[in-house]
Amino acid sequence: MDSGDTAWVLMSAALVMLMTPGLAFFYGGMVRSRGVLNMLMMSLGSMGVVGVLWVLYGYSAAFGSDLGGLGLLGSPLEFFGLGGLLGADQLSGTVPTPAFAAFQAMFAILTVALISGAIADRARFGPWLLFGGLWATLVYFPVAHWVFAFDETDAAGHVTAPGGWIANRLAAIDFAGGTAVHINAGAAALALVLVLGKRTGWPRDMGKPHSLPLVVLGAGLLWFGWFGFNAGSALAAGSTAAVAFVNTLVATSAAMLGWMLTERLRDGHATTLGAASGVIAGLVAITPACSSVTPLGAIVIGGIAGIVCAPAVGLKYRLGYDDSLDVVGVHLVGGLVGTLLVGLFASGAAPAGVNGLFYGGGLDQLWRQAVGAVAVFAYSFVLSLMIAWLVQKTIGFRSGVENELEGIDETEHAETAYHFGDGHASSRRSPVHTAGLGRELEGNNA
Amino acid sequence: MDSGDTAWVLMSAALVMLMTPGLAFFYGGMVRSRGVLNMLMMSLGSMGVVGVLWVLYGYSAAFGSDLGGLGLLGSPLEFFGLGGLLGADQLSGTVPTPAFAAFQAMFAILTVALISGAIADRARFGPWLLFGGLWATLVYFPVAHWVFAFDETDAAGHVTAPGGWIANRLAAIDFAGGTAVHINAGAAALALVLVLGKRTGWPRDMGKPHSLPLVVLGAGLLWFGWFGFNAGSALAAGSTAAVAFVNTLVATSAAMLGWMLTERLRDGHATTLGAASGVIAGLVAITPACSSVTPLGAIVIGGIAGIVCAPAVGLKYRLGYDDSLDVVGVHLVGGLVGTLLVGLFASGAAPAGVNGLFYGGGLDQLWRQAVGAVAVFAYSFVLSLMIAWLVQKTIGFRSGVENELEGIDETEHAETAYHFGDGHASSRRSPVHTAGLGRELEGNNA
Amino acid sequence: MDSGDTAWVLMSAALVMLMTPGLAFFYGGMVRSRGVLNMLMMSLGSMGVVGVLWVLYGYSAAFGSDLGGLGLLGSPLEFFGLGGLLGADQLSGTVPTPAFAAFQAMFAILTVALISGAIADRARFGPWLLFGGLWATLVYFPVAHWVFAFDETDAAGHVTAPGGWIANRLAAIDFAGGTAVHINAGAAALALVLVLGKRTGWPRDMGKPHSLPLVVLGAGLLWFGWFGFNAGSALAAGSTAAVAFVNTLVATSAAMLGWMLTERLRDGHATTLGAASGVIAGLVAITPACSSVTPLGAIVIGGIAGIVCAPAVGLKYRLGYDDSLDVVGVHLVGGLVGTLLVGLFASGAAPAGVNGLFYGGGLDQLWRQAVGAVAVFAYSFVLSLMIAWLVQKTIGFRSGVENELEGIDETEHAETAYHFGDGHASSRRSPVHTAGLGRELEGNNA
Repeated sequence: MDSGDTAWVLMSAALVMLMTPGLAFFYGGMVRSRGVLNMLMMSLGSMGVVGVLWVLYGYSAAFGSDLGGLGLLGSPLEFFGLGGLLGADQLSGTVPTPAFAAFQAMFAILTVALISGAIADRARFGPWLLFGGLWATLVYFPVAHWVFAFDETDAAGHVTAPGGWIANRLAAIDFAGGTAVHINAGAAALALVLVLGKRTGWPRDMGKPHSLPLVVLGAGLLWFGWFGFNAGSALAAGSTAAVAFVNTLVATSAAMLGWMLTERLRDGHATTLGAASGVIAGLVAITPACSSVTPLGAIVIGGIAGIVCAPAVGLKYRLGYDDSLDVVGVHLVGGLVGTLLVGLFASGAAPAGVNGLFYGGGLDQLWRQAVGAVAVFAYSFVLSLMIAWLVQKTIGFRSGVENELEGIDETEHAETAYHFGDGHASSRRSPVHTAGLGRELEGNNA
Repeated sequence: MDSGDTAWVLMSAALVMLMTPGLAFFYGGMVRSRGVLNMLMMSLGSMGVVGVLWVLYGYSAAFGSDLGGLGLLGSPLEFFGLGGLLGADQLSGTVPTPAFAAFQAMFAILTVALISGAIADRARFGPWLLFGGLWATLVYFPVAHWVFAFDETDAAGHVTAPGGWIANRLAAIDFAGGTAVHINAGAAALALVLVLGKRTGWPRDMGKPHSLPLVVLGAGLLWFGWFGFNAGSALAAGSTAAVAFVNTLVATSAAMLGWMLTERLRDGHATTLGAASGVIAGLVAITPACSSVTPLGAIVIGGIAGIVCAPAVGLKYRLGYDDSLDVVGVHLVGGLVGTLLVGLFASGAAPAGVNGLFYGGGLDQLWRQAVGAVAVFAYSFVLSLMIAWLVQKTIGFRSGVENELEGIDETEHAETAYHFGDGHASSRRSPVHTAGLGRELEGNNA
Repeated sequence: MDSGDTAWVLMSAALVMLMTPGLAFFYGGMVRSRGVLNMLMMSLGSMGVVGVLWVLYGYSAAFGSDLGGLGLLGSPLEFFGLGGLLGADQLSGTVPTPAFAAFQAMFAILTVALISGAIADRARFGPWLLFGGLWATLVYFPVAHWVFAFDETDAAGHVTAPGGWIANRLAAIDFAGGTAVHINAGAAALALVLVLGKRTGWPRDMGKPHSLPLVVLGAGLLWFGWFGFNAGSALAAGSTAAVAFVNTLVATSAAMLGWMLTERLRDGHATTLGAASGVIAGLVAITPACSSVTPLGAIVIGGIAGIVCAPAVGLKYRLGYDDSLDVVGVHLVGGLVGTLLVGLFASGAAPAGVNGLFYGGGLDQLWRQAVGAVAVFAYSFVLSLMIAWLVQKTIGFRSGVENELEGIDETEHAETAYHFGDGHASSRRSPVHTAGLGRELEGNNA
């Protein structure tokens, strides 16, 4: 056990945890004020449902003993409830296993939350929680096993316990989740919008983002947390983490510039929404690549991500799918950009020690990256279609049209986000409404 | 000195520091927009007053040599100003003593700030600062000694320097402050609302939360910081911290689900305010328990906290006390839930190594927990009543009724929180007002 | 390589990164709602431009081999792109060099962003990016070399590689950037407002801060991040970091109290804007001093900073310069206060081991501090004047008067920050506008 590594992994876990509230604000600021609470609640709901499922069986399904040596799934009840992992002798590498489990829990929570941006304003909340739980179980936990469960080996290098097929058999490089998190969530988002359909009136009358400062707050917290996401994935406080950290900074800087430049040339103005979106695109793209490229490579990958994703978020208008907050355009496209560019820009000078096409490594790594990307996309898309369809056909996923008109915060949560009017001394008209306790109050005053 | 442990404690101190602004937003979002600044200022004021007092004599009173071996108070001037603790040889366990002192400073600041939620809209600011300073001195510093000052022992296990009575003589388990922080603050809140009385018109006309996104921001920052609060209380980056971390995650997830489920069944909707409140209830309840239960135990404790606190916040309407933002319902009740359930769910498999009633340990731990909880409640409630009464009778604590009508931000701070109207180019009516410098300006233009 | 130190430096780098979004909110909340996005964008823009330049040649210019042994500049292309620093054997002290480079990158980004507060509402965005890049190159990178590049020495203490003149030849104490960051940014701010001139109508009709909760959010994030800024500057998780941490807490507490007290006595009320400003003033002042004073000294320095900066922000009205958000009054004045007071309050008991005037050290350290402060001020002010003048004369820096009336968010970024009206179900009038993709949409619907 190394206390420095443990401090780093625990701290990184906390940073990644903060990404889900950050995402909630990023998404929440982009919708109209009558739908912001539902966006926040979809992220919060993931923190509730996936947090519990992870402890119950998610960790086991992702990091338990590989079932049959196929690299497809861990043994889902092996560490049920994590109670057997609490001893001081339980280590994952140089850190206590519960620290590793907590770090990975945050990835599962975030990935489910990412999907929610695609279905703003039109999903019922209970079915969303059901979908999230099913999707984590059937899609995320297995895919995390594919990508993040590394073989255990003995001193001679022989595999003593096999891990996931993408990480080991395929040997695709996905340091922090370009496939497992971003392509995965992006594919699910695409499936979900196909099942749920467009919002009434789309693409007209969707309104403007109700609070761009809230969007920037979300982007800022995401960037901050992403240092834990990427550099924490080294699972040790050392050189690899430090390189991943620098790359996570500079790729994001470049992606922001790339997106702003695209807007400036195309529309005449660099917007705040564009800058914030560029930040996310850069973070997504550098996620799989942050341990395998130099900082110059990170600048190029980030720049490309910004320049590619800026127009990619417009695809929905051409192709006619209502991906409300551009989960496909940013996470799927950005994830593909980053995952594939590893095959071109990986440099032997970086910690992963692999050379991509542009560094003399040939096409070998590129096709591994492509296979990993396609496999995760296909599995996630098909399963997500099935799960969403199942939820829709059984308990109903899509909220009613009249609810869209009234505002989903009111219909799903019986709340509206803001009451600024009460700021004026003359407008004390609001009835009591505290924590849903109107009922007690009524009884009290009866 | 261990650099990994030091990194973890310093980082945890920073996380706990962020909880007080987080709390300010959590509280500030729940009040009307004409009272949000006063809520923020009560938390900021605690950061000012308690931060300075802690350095002057608070650390000494809590962690100085026990006076008379009674376990009631540390020697309050022993480390006056902390100047004698700056040498590289000054250690607390494996970390430099100033790191430990900084970590604990944040607890003192937060605990005072917690109380402020009970008295929204009706406390004068100067008297609040006086109350905060007196309460920290007479209540928090001693109680922190009771709960957080552990005996120092020699190699043979003999006590060389005795610590607080609850931590050592009673041996109640309160890992991160279920009694010292939450029951303590909750009891003080109850005392304060009894002394200050209800807001005019309560419980009618109290308005709705003016910004639920601000509430969620606060809850998110609190959850993030709470990982430092709980896992940092291990004072080392190792297995205990890792277990506390996982438990802090999953208990909170479960509590959120428990509160939302309660709302759904009772009111038909899961609300954002409920989810955010469930987060806090879960964090409060797992605080004393996070080192002594398994993750399954944490799920149960969190779930119970959510289900119990959701109706508990309605008690004020039945019993007729105006605890504005439910400090009693969440912190006192949640603190009691967590502190007592340690006696039932403590598991020998967890780092604390104690078995509660349900794990074969009998009633021994339960009564220790109960005695600790009752003692802190009683001491805090009585002293808080006295301090609040004293402040009210001397300089006056409660603001005037006309101020409540006009809005406490305006009357206490000569500000209003929001000026969105200036966003339109046509509404440039506001006079200059920057940082209270109107006077200079007047002179300049005279 | 020490994993605990590495964890601490990486974590501190993440904290300092968060300071720039924090600054954006601190500044953004203080302007009218029609200018908030431009404030956010100036900070985001620094994260883009300076992040990339730092990796390209900024790190080399600041920390490369000293050119000619003059202590004025590092070799700017020595580590171009940082690609040669990625190996596990590349260390700076006990941490991987990329971790140190990332930590220092955040300082460069923040310092440029700090300047932007002075020119709210009247700078064109593209020229701001150009100014930021030039200023980082010609001012920040050299000054960082002066202040932060320490001599490398052999075991016998002989200098094997000389560093910057202020850190080594002059031996001024500037632990975390009182001169390099705050006096530097403050001097540039003063130069910039002289070149750009006053806003139309100033000082009348400037409006009130549009969101004080956003200001407090910014101040809270800045304080949180500043623990990384100051205590991280120890570059190791040990005693020095712990002392810097405590001092960063308590000086800020005292400064907040000092500012609030000044307001209370002068204006009759302690304001939220004052408390938040006091926080920043205290953080600025303790920045150079946090390793060289005791916590009591930190209280005094913080208190003085609060009491001095509170009236200093009014100087602009007397002297007639439009420093919109008081960068001069807080960062220049606060930086001077902290840098000079080191000469008085430095205590041999603190990690730096230097005695100032009040601790028997005579005037020696005071004049060193004064020389360092004056040198950085003079260099930064003159260069900043020249760069700003150059930008203004070539591509034009100042936005047009009509743009000020319409609102700079609309004219520079084609956006407005808030659309709360859409919260009401009856107000769905907004046309589609998502991520600048109106053009695609038009095509789609044509």
